[in-house]
This record gives sequence, C-alpha cells and structure tokens, in this order.
Amino acid sequence: MIEYQARIYVTLRPSVLDPAGTAVQSGLQHLGYDNVEQVRIGKYIELKLSAADEETAKQQLDSICDQMLANPVIENYRFELTPLSAGVKA
Amino acid sequence: MIEYQARIYVTLRPSVLDPAGTAVQSGLQHLGYDNVEQVRIGKYIELKLSAADEETAKQQLDSICDQMLANPVIENYRFELTPLSAGVKA
Repeated sequence: MIEYQARIYVTLRPSVLDPAGTAVQSGLQHLGYDNVEQVRIGKYIELKLSAADEETAKQQLDSICDQMLANPVIENYRFELTPLSAGVKA
Repeated sequence: MIEYQARIYVTLRPSVLDPAGTAVQSGLQHLGYDNVEQVRIGKYIELKLSAADEETAKQQLDSICDQMLANPVIENYRFELTPLSAGVKA
C-alpha cells in the first residue's frame, strides 16, 4: 500500500451565490480594501489515504468527495495527490 | 494597476484540535473508508485584488489574512498570486 497526502479544494459553483464571501468583501471594504473583488469562500481539506496505486486512490477520493466532502449540486471539487511513502504500512 | 487572482489557504495550526476533521474521518470510516487518516479541514478563499505591483499585493494580502481571513492564534495561512491583466482598470 502506498500512502498519499491528498489536498482537496471544494468551491461553490460559479452560478451559486456566496453570502459569506459577500460579507467578507463588504467587511474588507469597511477596513479600506476597496481594491478587492469577487471573494468566494470554499473549503480546503487535507487527509492521508492509503491505496494500492494512484488510480485507486483517485477513484476513492472521487467517491469520498461526492459522498461526504462536497455537495455536488452546488459545489465543485478538485484534488491533488502526493505519494508520501512506498511500502507496506503496519 | 495590475489585477491579481489570489488563492488563500487557511489551515488550523498542527497543535490545534480539529473536531470537524475528526467527525469527517469518523463518518468516512462508517462509510467503509478505513484507509483515511489525519483529516484536517481548512478554508480556501479566492479573490481578485488590484495593486500597483506584486510586492504591494502581497503586503495587502498579508494584512487581509491577519485582520479578517485567518485567526493567527490558531490558524496558519498561505497564498498564491497570479497576475490576470496588466494595465489601468476602469
């Protein structure tokens, strides 16, 4: 089994309103940052995953994102996989 | 003024407990993903920022993260800046 570090980015689909992002943008303008636009807030998830190979790891991550980490109706996701170690884990 | 796309990653410091991450990991194990470990949940923020140059943009982003996007007591942040366009914006 190979252990992978996964970095997952979950973002709202562009057509979905982001009230939290709008609130942050408004707050930044109150602080004087009137050069900031289009604030969108998403989730960033890190996890470690053991799998036989990268293809299996990707398939599992797709399922994990669809089932638990992202709401596919309103969110998109993408992820990066980095192998951490090769070899049998205890 | 140059317009930049900023991607900001806010993560809990390693020493800070992450109950949401623990809950997700436990949920994944209930779904059968017992090969997943060390789930940590952070924030991913996208915004557009206009600045005279990259150095100014970085300084502004540092202030923005410290003041509004991250809680420096318990969170770390990092960001990436990509120039979107050069030239005066209307």
